[in-house]
Amino acid sequence: MKLTVKEIADKICARVTGDPSTSITGVSSFDHAGPSDITFAGNTAFLSRLDQTRAKAVIVPRDFEVAVPFSRFCLLKTDNPRRSFFELVPLFHPVTAPVPGISPLAVFGKNCALGENVTIGPHVVIENDVVIGDHVHVMPHVFIGNGCVIKDHTVIKPNVTLMDNTCLGSYVIVHSGSVIGSDGYGFVQDGDIHFKLSHTGHVIIGDHAEIGACNTIDRGTLGVTRIGNGVKTDNQVHIAHNVSIGDNTLVVAQVGIAGSTTVGRQTIIAGKSAISGHLTIGDNVIVGPFSGVSSSVPDNQIVSGIPHMPHKTWLKVVNILSRLPGMRKTLLAMEKRLESLERVIQKPEQP
Amino acid sequence: MKLTVKEIADKICARVTGDPSTSITGVSSFDHAGPSDITFAGNTAFLSRLDQTRAKAVIVPRDFEVAVPFSRFCLLKTDNPRRSFFELVPLFHPVTAPVPGISPLAVFGKNCALGENVTIGPHVVIENDVVIGDHVHVMPHVFIGNGCVIKDHTVIKPNVTLMDNTCLGSYVIVHSGSVIGSDGYGFVQDGDIHFKLSHTGHVIIGDHAEIGACNTIDRGTLGVTRIGNGVKTDNQVHIAHNVSIGDNTLVVAQVGIAGSTTVGRQTIIAGKSAISGHLTIGDNVIVGPFSGVSSSVPDNQIVSGIPHMPHKTWLKVVNILSRLPGMRKTLLAMEKRLESLERVIQKPEQP
Amino acid sequence: MKLTVKEIADKICARVTGDPSTSITGVSSFDHAGPSDITFAGNTAFLSRLDQTRAKAVIVPRDFEVAVPFSRFCLLKTDNPRRSFFELVPLFHPVTAPVPGISPLAVFGKNCALGENVTIGPHVVIENDVVIGDHVHVMPHVFIGNGCVIKDHTVIKPNVTLMDNTCLGSYVIVHSGSVIGSDGYGFVQDGDIHFKLSHTGHVIIGDHAEIGACNTIDRGTLGVTRIGNGVKTDNQVHIAHNVSIGDNTLVVAQVGIAGSTTVGRQTIIAGKSAISGHLTIGDNVIVGPFSGVSSSVPDNQIVSGIPHMPHKTWLKVVNILSRLPGMRKTLLAMEKRLESLERVIQKPEQP
Repeated sequence: MKLTVKEIADKICARVTGDPSTSITGVSSFDHAGPSDITFAGNTAFLSRLDQTRAKAVIVPRDFEVAVPFSRFCLLKTDNPRRSFFELVPLFHPVTAPVPGISPLAVFGKNCALGENVTIGPHVVIENDVVIGDHVHVMPHVFIGNGCVIKDHTVIKPNVTLMDNTCLGSYVIVHSGSVIGSDGYGFVQDGDIHFKLSHTGHVIIGDHAEIGACNTIDRGTLGVTRIGNGVKTDNQVHIAHNVSIGDNTLVVAQVGIAGSTTVGRQTIIAGKSAISGHLTIGDNVIVGPFSGVSSSVPDNQIVSGIPHMPHKTWLKVVNILSRLPGMRKTLLAMEKRLESLERVIQKPEQP
Repeated sequence: MKLTVKEIADKICARVTGDPSTSITGVSSFDHAGPSDITFAGNTAFLSRLDQTRAKAVIVPRDFEVAVPFSRFCLLKTDNPRRSFFELVPLFHPVTAPVPGISPLAVFGKNCALGENVTIGPHVVIENDVVIGDHVHVMPHVFIGNGCVIKDHTVIKPNVTLMDNTCLGSYVIVHSGSVIGSDGYGFVQDGDIHFKLSHTGHVIIGDHAEIGACNTIDRGTLGVTRIGNGVKTDNQVHIAHNVSIGDNTLVVAQVGIAGSTTVGRQTIIAGKSAISGHLTIGDNVIVGPFSGVSSSVPDNQIVSGIPHMPHKTWLKVVNILSRLPGMRKTLLAMEKRLESLERVIQKPEQP
Repeated sequence: MKLTVKEIADKICARVTGDPSTSITGVSSFDHAGPSDITFAGNTAFLSRLDQTRAKAVIVPRDFEVAVPFSRFCLLKTDNPRRSFFELVPLFHPVTAPVPGISPLAVFGKNCALGENVTIGPHVVIENDVVIGDHVHVMPHVFIGNGCVIKDHTVIKPNVTLMDNTCLGSYVIVHSGSVIGSDGYGFVQDGDIHFKLSHTGHVIIGDHAEIGACNTIDRGTLGVTRIGNGVKTDNQVHIAHNVSIGDNTLVVAQVGIAGSTTVGRQTIIAGKSAISGHLTIGDNVIVGPFSGVSSSVPDNQIVSGIPHMPHKTWLKVVNILSRLPGMRKTLLAMEKRLESLERVIQKPEQP
């Protein structure tokens, strides 16, 4: 693939500094770019060392100004250089669209409805009463249980399990190894034994959601576990029964969210964090990495720590933790000094 | 499905207040119940706002008394309302029993023994010398290695891997994505490299155990990794080689238990906790969520924290953590005040 | 299998004390050994109670001396008793080598190259342009995407997913449920929505690496996610896009390493730890269990804690944590004592 800087600029609505007829043959990161690549410099960490990339063209912020223009490469100015760059990537690395078709090695139950241009790989097992929309791509070894609904343009990667009645929206991606709709962890104590609750609910995942690899998303016990539109989960995320996650929320790797908790919209739960059950986490919240959230968090808060607290407080606590041994020494020493002062002071009072 | 309150009361041994001929058509949670549903109120959080449910019948504790009877709905009194309610759920949401039979797309090795009424789904692979009991249900894409034994009434969900010689008791459920019997993490350092130990042990899982989705339970290095009867693990639990877990213990999501640790009976390990290797955790222990257990814990203890400590102590520590910045300020200020006092006191002594 | 002590000693280069014609029929752990087994005692914990094993032969360190020789069993002295013992295990528990052959139930794309003595199990799906070396063993339900390369003697256990262009070195083992080469968690914010980045990179895994069960190793966004030679990961490890891990590093269960972080050689990341993105962790580093590493760590450091600090400091901090309630009480009491001293001292100054 070869494009001129002008052709690229047209695609990403960029203003060009330098020769627009320059040929570009690849996309690469700032430090790995070769002499006919395009790259991007989205922030000062890269903008301050623009002369260090070997790229032939660099996408920079629209308001970026240089005192002396670079002659070695073109600048392409856009509102969001990172986004613009990643719009170019598929041009140079075109993804081969799957050839629609149903593998003769896929197994179907009764009463399934398939849309147009569907691709179903070998060794897929689809049970009864499943509805699959147009342009859906189901890769090998996927299991789709009874009554599942999968809307248009959704992609299910290999080795995914969708248990009964799971609904996936349109343009959803589910990565390999994920299990959606398994029974929640619900038991009722009966003497020594744990009596298993029936789990008759299901999981609904909104449009444009992306579910990482090896996630586990349990069905509602009676009702619904709901993942909003545009939610993106990283790998190894656990979402328990009856959880609800609002639109466009990000859930980073190895997070666990316990049963019946509600998470708002546009919220970020950073990696390794744990959120207890039956809480309400608001909209636009940020939960820092490796945090333990044990009570509800209102909208627009930034929290972190184990247990969670305002992020600014946690930064101070973190700063003190390693000084605790010193503080303890100081405290013990002060206690002695105080005692000796008390002895001095109190002596004269004794007649 | 439609049942009268009387018919329901007979099934769950309930005493009825209100009209026993009332018709019930569904089960639902307290807040989502509709006008012909039955629900339950197991504790004061719900009992105190009984008038807020739209349900036609509510299961309540046997000793619950109301001053003025509700005319809008029936009360059904039982010893354990939650349990009683979940006994009703399958009546209104009957689970379709699998039709016994062996898929022609399942693959068998040599010398396997199958019980009666077994259901084996498509694309199951069963190796040599496997014994499968009566009424076992193996769902699609399951792999069962050489020499495995699976007892009566056990259900293995899709995409489960059982490595060689794994034994599952009767009435066991293994959820999707779980891997049981893989090699433990055992190496011996030899200069710079890590020499892999042979893992010749296996995993034994007791009757009525339930293993969550995406669990990893490693085989014993030489001996056995043992999961007791009635143990329930949540999703993404990791259990290392040679661990032993006592009967009816609960292991909540994303817990990790390191090699050769013994956990007692009726114990609860709450979510995200980690337990170091070669420890003994007693019977009836509770390990709080997100705890790091680094030494053995005797019977009947409640511990939490990183590292673990008595739960009551941890609650106090947690309460202080966010006040550490203030404590440090106080300490530094006191030190100055102490110094100035010392200066005042010591001056007069200088002649 | 039956071997004499002399035959065993020859295999592991041991010096024998006792009757070299003694017959040994099995290998076992120190406490479970029977009267014709061999076991090992690698450290003083076992050497100090040698009389308690029922084994017929015990491998001990070369420099181990006993005042009075044991008549009941032979001693075999080697440089590394644990390693020597585990060299014997496969003699007594021979692993059945797979019978090479391609299952007729495996599915191949176009243009794949297979080496000699390859074993491909049933229900394996291999896409286009895949290269598989000699003596490779691919177990059932494995998915191998377009362009993957798998070198000689590598074993892929059931239900593994290798996405496009993943390269596995020789003598690699990948355990069940692992997903290698899925898209990283990369989005660029665009107003409310998260625009998905193309992930055109891939994963390269070195020779003799072993990947545990249910790992997730994401492809590079543009470049490579690299796992060095001899790296061993435990179960449920998450390795994000563009991470690089040096040779012979150990990554224990449930660890998460965020994007673009570099980990050195011969380093150990203990269980449940989290490492933030874009960091450099040096060679020969040890990160303690359940630690949160939030900044780079130079070579040869031992760190632990949340957040990480020098391990020795963390041990002191840990020791103080449970005493914080006491410290706070002392502090508040001292403040009162200080105030009353101040009152006494300052009073006389007031005329």
